[in-house]
Amino acid sequence: MKTAIIGASGYSGEELVRLLSRHPQVELALVSSRSLVGKPLVSVMPKFRGLVSPELVFCDSDPAALAARDDIDVFFLALPHGVAAEFAVPLAKAGRKVIDLSADFRLGSASLYEEYYGQPHPAPELLEQAAYVIPEIAAPGWEKAPLIANPGCYPTSIITPLTPLLRTGIVSTKGIVVNSMSGVSGAGKKAVEAYLYCERNESAKAYGLPKHRHLSEIEEQLGVAAGGPVIIQFNPHLAPMSRGIATTITVPAAKPDLGALYAAWEEAFAGRPFIGILPSGTCPDTAHVTGTNRVDMSAVYDARTGNFVITSAEDNVVKGASGQAVQTMNLWLGFKETDGLL
Amino acid sequence: MKTAIIGASGYSGEELVRLLSRHPQVELALVSSRSLVGKPLVSVMPKFRGLVSPELVFCDSDPAALAARDDIDVFFLALPHGVAAEFAVPLAKAGRKVIDLSADFRLGSASLYEEYYGQPHPAPELLEQAAYVIPEIAAPGWEKAPLIANPGCYPTSIITPLTPLLRTGIVSTKGIVVNSMSGVSGAGKKAVEAYLYCERNESAKAYGLPKHRHLSEIEEQLGVAAGGPVIIQFNPHLAPMSRGIATTITVPAAKPDLGALYAAWEEAFAGRPFIGILPSGTCPDTAHVTGTNRVDMSAVYDARTGNFVITSAEDNVVKGASGQAVQTMNLWLGFKETDGLL
Amino acid sequence: MKTAIIGASGYSGEELVRLLSRHPQVELALVSSRSLVGKPLVSVMPKFRGLVSPELVFCDSDPAALAARDDIDVFFLALPHGVAAEFAVPLAKAGRKVIDLSADFRLGSASLYEEYYGQPHPAPELLEQAAYVIPEIAAPGWEKAPLIANPGCYPTSIITPLTPLLRTGIVSTKGIVVNSMSGVSGAGKKAVEAYLYCERNESAKAYGLPKHRHLSEIEEQLGVAAGGPVIIQFNPHLAPMSRGIATTITVPAAKPDLGALYAAWEEAFAGRPFIGILPSGTCPDTAHVTGTNRVDMSAVYDARTGNFVITSAEDNVVKGASGQAVQTMNLWLGFKETDGLL
Amino acid sequence: MKTAIIGASGYSGEELVRLLSRHPQVELALVSSRSLVGKPLVSVMPKFRGLVSPELVFCDSDPAALAARDDIDVFFLALPHGVAAEFAVPLAKAGRKVIDLSADFRLGSASLYEEYYGQPHPAPELLEQAAYVIPEIAAPGWEKAPLIANPGCYPTSIITPLTPLLRTGIVSTKGIVVNSMSGVSGAGKKAVEAYLYCERNESAKAYGLPKHRHLSEIEEQLGVAAGGPVIIQFNPHLAPMSRGIATTITVPAAKPDLGALYAAWEEAFAGRPFIGILPSGTCPDTAHVTGTNRVDMSAVYDARTGNFVITSAEDNVVKGASGQAVQTMNLWLGFKETDGLL
Repeated sequence: MKTAIIGASGYSGEELVRLLSRHPQVELALVSSRSLVGKPLVSVMPKFRGLVSPELVFCDSDPAALAARDDIDVFFLALPHGVAAEFAVPLAKAGRKVIDLSADFRLGSASLYEEYYGQPHPAPELLEQAAYVIPEIAAPGWEKAPLIANPGCYPTSIITPLTPLLRTGIVSTKGIVVNSMSGVSGAGKKAVEAYLYCERNESAKAYGLPKHRHLSEIEEQLGVAAGGPVIIQFNPHLAPMSRGIATTITVPAAKPDLGALYAAWEEAFAGRPFIGILPSGTCPDTAHVTGTNRVDMSAVYDARTGNFVITSAEDNVVKGASGQAVQTMNLWLGFKETDGLL
Repeated sequence: MKTAIIGASGYSGEELVRLLSRHPQVELALVSSRSLVGKPLVSVMPKFRGLVSPELVFCDSDPAALAARDDIDVFFLALPHGVAAEFAVPLAKAGRKVIDLSADFRLGSASLYEEYYGQPHPAPELLEQAAYVIPEIAAPGWEKAPLIANPGCYPTSIITPLTPLLRTGIVSTKGIVVNSMSGVSGAGKKAVEAYLYCERNESAKAYGLPKHRHLSEIEEQLGVAAGGPVIIQFNPHLAPMSRGIATTITVPAAKPDLGALYAAWEEAFAGRPFIGILPSGTCPDTAHVTGTNRVDMSAVYDARTGNFVITSAEDNVVKGASGQAVQTMNLWLGFKETDGLL
Repeated sequence: MKTAIIGASGYSGEELVRLLSRHPQVELALVSSRSLVGKPLVSVMPKFRGLVSPELVFCDSDPAALAARDDIDVFFLALPHGVAAEFAVPLAKAGRKVIDLSADFRLGSASLYEEYYGQPHPAPELLEQAAYVIPEIAAPGWEKAPLIANPGCYPTSIITPLTPLLRTGIVSTKGIVVNSMSGVSGAGKKAVEAYLYCERNESAKAYGLPKHRHLSEIEEQLGVAAGGPVIIQFNPHLAPMSRGIATTITVPAAKPDLGALYAAWEEAFAGRPFIGILPSGTCPDTAHVTGTNRVDMSAVYDARTGNFVITSAEDNVVKGASGQAVQTMNLWLGFKETDGLL
Repeated sequence: MKTAIIGASGYSGEELVRLLSRHPQVELALVSSRSLVGKPLVSVMPKFRGLVSPELVFCDSDPAALAARDDIDVFFLALPHGVAAEFAVPLAKAGRKVIDLSADFRLGSASLYEEYYGQPHPAPELLEQAAYVIPEIAAPGWEKAPLIANPGCYPTSIITPLTPLLRTGIVSTKGIVVNSMSGVSGAGKKAVEAYLYCERNESAKAYGLPKHRHLSEIEEQLGVAAGGPVIIQFNPHLAPMSRGIATTITVPAAKPDLGALYAAWEEAFAGRPFIGILPSGTCPDTAHVTGTNRVDMSAVYDARTGNFVITSAEDNVVKGASGQAVQTMNLWLGFKETDGLL
């Protein structure tokens, strides 16, 4: 089967190239980029010499031409925010399978999109039909959607551990405080002074307080899990590393029973190959999941405060973006869930 | 005036060497270490060649001999936890000024010490008389104490911004959630596999959940500020950098008035040379305070949650340890507060 | 087919675990370690959760018991130097295929071994029969050897680019100056103060001057290529990164013809999947080969000095150790050279 | 006394701000920058809050207006290459003391400048009169020059250890091979993709082969020391750290006498406060000199090759740029050489 990446020039685009090139069941047949038209991919991404044929050349990102490619089985959109609809609409219309890595189709409603992104949604109909897919979490039936909205990096690290606990009423829906630390690749590949090596090395800081854009999808998904509105405090931070997200969630216990919390996880994630449930007292470490599609999680209960403290770790570019997209593709096309991801 | 460092071989010991060697008003006259007796300091700490005389040699850490040194005006204890009392007691008895960088004398009561450190306090009388000093915060009169207990690194980053807000009732005393990220120097200089370069590079993780030892002094000090018990959630993390602590405090607003919060800071810290109050929306960055004795702080108010999110940054070895100790010495000996610290 | 790793607890041992666990043609059936007997591998190496079965448990490193395992097709020795012979001799005697990652069998003669390693060789007969294998370089017929001595990390980065140029007389055999920069994983996983994160972060330095142990195998192999003795200057350095070796070789040109140099490379490495020949002017970057089994190389000619400056980059743990070992195994067992290495 | 920095916005400009603000004998009275006119320095360089007055505001870089400032005792030029002459000429004409951190006035002749920088020299007369000053090396009388050309970072690490050895004929003038590793701050503060954190982290590579611009001043100065032309191989590398240069020089011994080499150093650098001569076998480490104005050096003799291998380490922004400029200012204005630099 054949895959295509539209807009492959950032860090998640590069990771998609790597995963799809190594995938035993698919071929990376097309990469497009308006700014890199005509260049061989390996000349732009030298780390893929030997893995990607020198004959794979960037073609132009032309929505109509791409939508006409009925030889491509899955299109991955790795475009900057706000641009995906231009491609998603004609592709979906032509009946192509689309997995979008941007935030453009993640939300449930156009009005929520407008509140957070400051402009009307360019394709409200498709937005309505899009499915937000964390495979371990998503409600069955998502495979019928015309477009998959791949979740954000921070959201995956938060929604995955919390959803089973909200569904089973183990944690409160109020007073949730989430802190996350992310590697700098999460900021993208833009040549901006703030992301120069010397600015980010030996530097840690919060940012985006108090209303980071990811709040929209996080609260929406947590609300679905809880069966009612959930408002959280979300505090993201940059850490001096390339990859990784470490998330720490403090949440009042509704049922102060750590055993029940772990049982909820065990049940929700039984047999899921990319979930690591660590014993209480062993904290996840981004170094143990970097380069993999795993999210590790652990929890403790603090009798002094009545809170659970839930920790998770993932690779922001793999499980937080491209790995999850390939995992979803595997299920969508009927492959083994782990194909190309071990 | 002359200073001495007892047990100078760790990272805060090294930083004390640096600060005292460069101090315009004092001389580093003595360094002691049981394991390094007879070695010139510059042979053990090559970075201080040119700053420290090759004739400064480690002498033995002999409590009685050190207490007899009436030529030394201030003794700094930079010993592992549990060891300080062996020196502090005879030094205090001999009327010497002592600043202890360990946790051994930070708490208000021997029972609290025993709860957290698992053994009876070795010198409860001296514990009672010791003063816990963050200069910007400490109640006047601390100079009369026979021993100064220098606060911990995480506690300084938490107590400093919160104290004025608890005193003025701007923040709630309940539901405080603190997350901190620390550079690896905070773990000390022990040759332990977990702190090897390859284990910590590109790695971020929580640890010490849910009851880190620093909780004892943090909650004690916050309780003093609040005039009643304060219980917090404290979630420390390791980040892949050598220096720095970034702390993010989520706390329900008692008075949801960001202006009042800033006014409380401005008033509490007016004229204090080592406090940086950053505008709301500008988050502190450890890179901007590393190598200095400053702690920067900022706050936002989130109307959706009713919380303030308060951020602070410091160098864990400077303001979080040795710089604060020298700052306290400056005030104790009547120097300018900033002497040797700019 | 089944593989075993004897002494899997260091960084190259870990990388062998990763590569063999993901290999499509073999199974990692046994891991042994005297210090970790009885422990599940995933409890010691948490990053392999999900990749390695929790049932794979370290067994004891007992030479006789291991040599009796006729169900194992290849044994990899990942032991500290000086220990390999204890296992290699009984394994070879029992006719097992052995690939040794240590330096113990790399040299051609017991006397050279004694000169560099300070003790007599423990198994001079097996030493004689062992084959030193860089697959792109090794003389045909190595497959008949009873034991493969896997080359060192620095040596691979030096011997690979230089060998074709010595064989064809393009570079001089005199006046070769090699400088290499290595990531800290090259120093191993020993809990030693010098390799603590805070000691190695933001630190670069030469070490091991002027006669690093790797000189023995480097000069031996270069001498074979040149058809006569070759003496070089070899200056290794530590750089603040986990992985990677960047090597820069300055060598007087025998034939000052850059085109001939590149032609020699193109011919020697035609069709080799793990060699990257970069255009003159494009310097190899360790970041582009880290995690892969590739070695990239490039050269310039400096008419002012009459030297070629040859640069190469590899991942010290992959092509510099475990990846090359698996590559050799692939050829030895008749698999595709790239199996499990893309 | 008053100092001014023209063009203070890069990393060496920032370091000048730090050093001059802390200097006991001078005041930083003026900072100019065409792009930052009107902005308070602490708003652009937040790390200097508390050190620099919020009232120090960037003024415009207007050569005539600056030259008219007869209240300023020393002007530091921290401008991009090619721009300095625009300021240096009017300043020198007005009799102001000027220290230029760029390469514009470092060379001895306009023709050499044109060969390396690709354009005619804009002020050949002033070029002729400028003095190239490494204080430990420069010939007496440099204080009379109207303009000091502050040496480059790599050159300082090379010229300083080699000059005494060339003057005394201990090393050969032929076959010198220099390899250097530099932190990324050496690349400057330009928002360029190649210097993004994720591009430089975990990355080491050579660049600028074979004819880096610094060769011009290096060979010129070494030629002066040797009393005849010296041609070297100079191989610079980027290492994943912010600060530091580690240089390793391989040079055939003219007098194969390590004791004589060390004696030459001891004599040349007797009493110099910023030179660290380390025993043979102890290699300099950038971590031990970062943040200081020191250059450490060491040497070994290799009887097998007849080469000395000489190693040095410095902080590329301090001794390699701004620290050396301040050291020169100290001597020029009659202060203690170490003022503000310890």
